[in-house]
This record gives sequence, structure tokens and C-alpha cells, in this order.
Amino acid sequence: MTAVPPTVAAVFGAAGPALADRARTVDALITTLVDTIPGPTGSRAAGVVAAGGKRLRPLLALLLAGDGDAPADHVEGSLLVSAAAVELVHVATLVHDDVLDRAPLRRGVQTVWATDGPAAATGAGDALLAAAFQAVAADCPADVARILATAASSLAAGELMQRADAYRLDITTERYEERVIGKTAALFEAACRIGAVHGDVGEDLAGGIGRDLGVAFQMLDDLLDIEGDPAVTGKARGTDLLDGTVTLPLAIAARREPSIAAVDLPSLDIPAAAALCDQIVASGACEEVRGMAYARIDAAQSAISGLPGAPSRREALALAARGLVDRTS
Amino acid sequence: MTAVPPTVAAVFGAAGPALADRARTVDALITTLVDTIPGPTGSRAAGVVAAGGKRLRPLLALLLAGDGDAPADHVEGSLLVSAAAVELVHVATLVHDDVLDRAPLRRGVQTVWATDGPAAATGAGDALLAAAFQAVAADCPADVARILATAASSLAAGELMQRADAYRLDITTERYEERVIGKTAALFEAACRIGAVHGDVGEDLAGGIGRDLGVAFQMLDDLLDIEGDPAVTGKARGTDLLDGTVTLPLAIAARREPSIAAVDLPSLDIPAAAALCDQIVASGACEEVRGMAYARIDAAQSAISGLPGAPSRREALALAARGLVDRTS
Repeated sequence: MTAVPPTVAAVFGAAGPALADRARTVDALITTLVDTIPGPTGSRAAGVVAAGGKRLRPLLALLLAGDGDAPADHVEGSLLVSAAAVELVHVATLVHDDVLDRAPLRRGVQTVWATDGPAAATGAGDALLAAAFQAVAADCPADVARILATAASSLAAGELMQRADAYRLDITTERYEERVIGKTAALFEAACRIGAVHGDVGEDLAGGIGRDLGVAFQMLDDLLDIEGDPAVTGKARGTDLLDGTVTLPLAIAARREPSIAAVDLPSLDIPAAAALCDQIVASGACEEVRGMAYARIDAAQSAISGLPGAPSRREALALAARGLVDRTS
Repeated sequence: MTAVPPTVAAVFGAAGPALADRARTVDALITTLVDTIPGPTGSRAAGVVAAGGKRLRPLLALLLAGDGDAPADHVEGSLLVSAAAVELVHVATLVHDDVLDRAPLRRGVQTVWATDGPAAATGAGDALLAAAFQAVAADCPADVARILATAASSLAAGELMQRADAYRLDITTERYEERVIGKTAALFEAACRIGAVHGDVGEDLAGGIGRDLGVAFQMLDDLLDIEGDPAVTGKARGTDLLDGTVTLPLAIAARREPSIAAVDLPSLDIPAAAALCDQIVASGACEEVRGMAYARIDAAQSAISGLPGAPSRREALALAARGLVDRTS
């Protein structure tokens, strides 16, 4: 982890040095696993991974597993490999998403799609996914493989649902939540469940925290696409809309304003997308979605405050949850 | 399995009704697993799966597992799920390959790429892969997850190696074999290893049989692209060459004939590809490759003849191996 984001640094500070040590080991493991992918494409995939990201999912796994006071060696090894595998599954989906979105840049570096083409990038995503399952099959209890496979299945299903819903302004809130649970929250949930498998928290309790945080994360991400400052987010507003992805703010705004419900999404261009974003904000839909996201985070915070173990873990998890609210990019 | 190919029917005949029953159950399991993929894309993926193929990999798993005389119920369940999962991994790679090759048809039906576009097809492949791992994690011993993940990793690595080698006429025989082991033989090997996990044959012995058969299968497939009758194979000769894929017959021919080594592959068109196929045949390279494929099949047959258990299993496996030699499409 070359540069630790402020939120993560705060979490490390609250949880104590054992967590930072574990996070560094997980980072090294991720690099080792990616290095098994052969050839120049493997090196490029390694570059994408090395470019960072906040490693939120491994962090959640480590936090749910407890405060690091001397677990048995084999449990520690399995925990670290599991946490690395969760991040690999996440990166695999990013590499595939970049193919589908024809994205030239990710985390400030060129995507595998841009440097090596769609074929190599599809192969690289498959290789990352397989490396995750291989590591887990070799070093972790069967529960971890079950949790990770369930999440990978949900991720693919969520992505397919989103593509099937393209350009549909009439999606319900329930359908949006179902998509978001698949596309995003399932992997947050898996990270927390994997932590629980290695620690003293019930798996379903941990999974619920991860799911709430994941849904909130995606809702706030969708709000950033509508309201975010392009100078901070690094991308134009309304990118989702141009892509045909109808997120909850737009769906709610369309229910409120007939003029928004009548928009012809496929014909949208960049200025029209920005104007539509303004209309969505004016409808009050963003406040409604923000309220839903905060309610999810409150539910997670409430569950976190009831967790057993050292106060430092509860404090660190609460900081991680707060970090999701405060994100601006 | 709506229409049983002649080779498979012969194998069923030799092995007895228990094998055919198991194969039908595996087929039903494959359908059930694919049906978990949501939405219209899931239905289309199910159509591709239902369109058949010879189900060679599940067949090898079932044959290596033994002759079916009353294994414990939980072993039987795990074997059938494992065999189905191997086929799902295979189909997942086909669906992704169709995206990369922009292939309109597969097994006579429209590909997911053709009907639903590259995004949905990439997602469908990911969903099939995840469904395989999920089924195995839920119902099979950890050895099966390990074997399947290793194979999935090899498949992706082999695909990446092949893309990295595109248009290179100077690849060595060793490099070609390494690619083929990854791209094709690893999954044949996995199928046989999975059978062994559920039966009385050593895993490495079974794996070696699968690897030899897989390499032979791919070599003969590559020969079909050079020598096959388009009226039988359903595709023009030289498709691999047009795609930049340098297979062993071409690599050997280039070593023998300076005029072939000097060919500018990227500028090849369909008539030029057919003419190059004729030159490869004239060089004698195809006979050399056929000899290597037959040597692999001989090695597999020799290992098969030493297997324990009922003679019917050895006979059925020998027929399956022979089927690989006799294929014309």
C-alpha cells in the first residue's frame, strides 16, 4: 500500500499496529498472487492492482476477524489469504468492467483493456478470479470458498441485471436494491463473513454489516455521479446516465417529474446529461437517496456498537463506516 | 443430452447403463445450475448449454470414478456435481471466447455475444464460472475446489499465452505444448482428477491420462483447421491463421520451408489462408503433428489398460480415447 488514504490511516490508528501489519501482509499477498499470471498481460494486471484503491474489502475482513491478539498460525494464514482473495475478485470485476466500458484509465493508470486489448483484458480478469479461488482452495477452510463463490455469483448476476435494466426509467427501488446487493454489497458482505469465519462474531451478523455498508457505498457512489465535482471525482457528471445505467436518484426523480420520465436516454449527449443531473438534484431525489444510504450506515453502526471484543475494533469499524459517508471521490 | 453422439453412445454401451444414467443426471444438474443465472441473458446462456456438445469432460470424470457399483450417496452427489461443474467451466470459456472472436454461432445456435452483446456475454461467462465454484464449494470435498481452481487458472493463463504469441511463426514445440496444456488439457486433466477423487485410481495417474488426451484433442483440432473438410467442420480452413493463432502445424512448416516462414500473417485473407493450409500440408508438418497426437493417445491407452476395476471401465475409456482420434468435426 504505497499511499494510505486518510480514512484507512485513521482506521489503522484506532485499531493499533497489528491491523496495519496485517494489511501490509495482505497487500504483499495480493501482489504475489497477481504475479502468477503469465506474460506481459500479467505484468500489466499487476500494475493495475499496484495502483491501489483503498483495499476496503480486505480491511473489513481483517476488522471483523478481531483485534489480532495471537490467533493460531494457520487461522492467521487463512485470514490473510482470504482477505487478499476478496480484493482479487474485486479487481477481476474492475478489469472486466473496463472492457465493457472501454475505459482508458483506472486509478490513474492505463487499463489492461487500453494497453493489451479486450481479449487479453478478458483473460486477465478470468485469471485474477481463478487465482483468488485457487488461493482459497489451497489455504482456507471450505466456508471461505463457499462465501467467495456465492459473492462472485452475485456480482455476475448483479452486472447482468444492470445490463438488462439499461435505459429503463421505471425501475423500482426494490429492483435497484436487488441489483446493488448483487453488484456491490455481496462482496462487502463476503469480506465481513470471511472475517467472521476467522473470529468471534456470528457470520450472519457480520454479513449484515457488510451488506448495509455495501449498499450505502453504492448509493453514495451513484450520488457522486449526479452531484460530484468533476474536479474532485475526475470524471464528468452523468457518466452512468450516458451509459444507460438508471440509478436510484434518476428513477426517483422520474417518478416525481413527468419531464424527467419523458427523457430519451439513448439520445443523451454530455451537455444534456449534465443538465439532467441538475434536474435530478432540483427534484429532491438525491436527498431521498442520501437518507436511505445514511439509514443503512446507521444500521451498520448500530450492529457494530454491539460487537464483542476490544473497544478498539468497534472504534476502527465505526471509522471505516464513517469513511464511506465522507467520500467525495 | 438430447442427441447422444456415436462415440458417446459406444462408451455408454461398453460401460453399462449406470454410466448413461449418471450422464443424464449430470446433464440435468448442468441445466439446473445454468438456470440460476438471472434474466434473459441467463436463458440465452442456458440455450447455448442445451445445444449440446459432447460433454467429454464430465464423461471422463464419470469414467475415472469407477463403474458405479453403489458408491455412498454423498460421494455420488459430489461426483455428479463435480462433473457438471467441469462442463460449466468449459462453457464459460466458450462464452468468453465467442466475445473475443466475435463469433455469431456456436453449436449451431446464436452465441450470447450475438444476441445480447459483449457486456452480457462477459457477464454470462463470469456467472457460469461462479456457478461452478459455488456448486463445488457447497457439495464437494475441498480437493475438488482445488482441482477446479487450478484448471481455471491454467485455462486463463493458456489463453493469455496464446494471445501473447499471436502472429509469431517462431514458437517452439515446447511453447506450443505449454499453451495447449493450459488452454485445453488442464480441464481434461481436472475432469480425470475429479473422477479419481471419487474412485479407486490415483489422482496423478488419472490426471496424466486426462492431460495426454487433452493435448491430443487440441493437436487434432488444430489439424482440422488446416486439413478439415469445410463441409464437415462447418467452417473455412485456416480460421486460426486468420486470427493470428500460430498452431504447431504452421510453426513446424515454417521451420521446414523458408517461403512459409516469410508469410506476412496479419495481411492474410481467406483465399491466402486456404493456400497457406495447402502449403502446410505439402510440407509434411501435419503428419508430424498427427504422430505426436497419436503418441499422446497411445500413452493414455497404455495407462488406461493398467487401471484397476472392472474391464468394462477400461473398455469404455479406450473407446473414449479412440473417439478423439476419429473425430472429423
